[in-house]
Amino acid sequence: MTQADSDTALLDEVAWNSDGLVPAIAQDAKTGRILMMAWMNRESLALTIDEKRAVYWSRSRGKLWRKGESSGHVQQVREMRLDCDGDTVLLLVEQLGGIACHTGRTSCFYRVLDGGEWRTNQPVIKDPETIYE
Amino acid sequence: MTQADSDTALLDEVAWNSDGLVPAIAQDAKTGRILMMAWMNRESLALTIDEKRAVYWSRSRGKLWRKGESSGHVQQVREMRLDCDGDTVLLLVEQLGGIACHTGRTSCFYRVLDGGEWRTNQPVIKDPETIYE
Repeated sequence: MTQADSDTALLDEVAWNSDGLVPAIAQDAKTGRILMMAWMNRESLALTIDEKRAVYWSRSRGKLWRKGESSGHVQQVREMRLDCDGDTVLLLVEQLGGIACHTGRTSCFYRVLDGGEWRTNQPVIKDPETIYE
Repeated sequence: MTQADSDTALLDEVAWNSDGLVPAIAQDAKTGRILMMAWMNRESLALTIDEKRAVYWSRSRGKLWRKGESSGHVQQVREMRLDCDGDTVLLLVEQLGGIACHTGRTSCFYRVLDGGEWRTNQPVIKDPETIYE
């Protein structure tokens, strides 16, 4: 089996949704913190495997999104997992810059349910204005 | 503001998809291990908040799914988080029985990408035949 055949086989095991996408969870490989959830299409998953960095599919922009391409906040992929029914991917990553969120926070999950409200409980590490210069 | 108003407000902050669903990630509150990803509709999220246990929406069965209702593998919710754009929920849970997956494993993410294949690297703790008696 060639490398290309092997890639095709493992991509075929993913249960792509009707839009040809699969959700991908990024978790910090060292701290276990969940950083974000984004989407991948077949091409972006193949690129993530080949380049060992997270490449998502931006649904809003309708194009490939090499995480960190403008911010430098690249996610280097240490391990990839697939769940039992093949419809969710998990990436264990090293988050360069320690910032995954476009708001300048470590994680996108910075709102916690508290007293009937979603309360922000993570500081902004870097002003988003200066992230995307 | 009454409790019902408060609940409505926090549910309105969720960016429900076109099917009225949001993905929910369950993470073990102690170990940090990601256990599973499932979906919630508005009612299941409200019930999860009220009952402090994970209640999902089963897309395949088209009905509410009180996690653990037949297996006993209830997820007691310790904390709930919402991401920056409101389209993913994170639950920090205590997984009763230590088994989240219907295959009898701790986590649904038991396949790891290794040498061009998704290889199973988590043991079955309990025979699934005996989980759902």
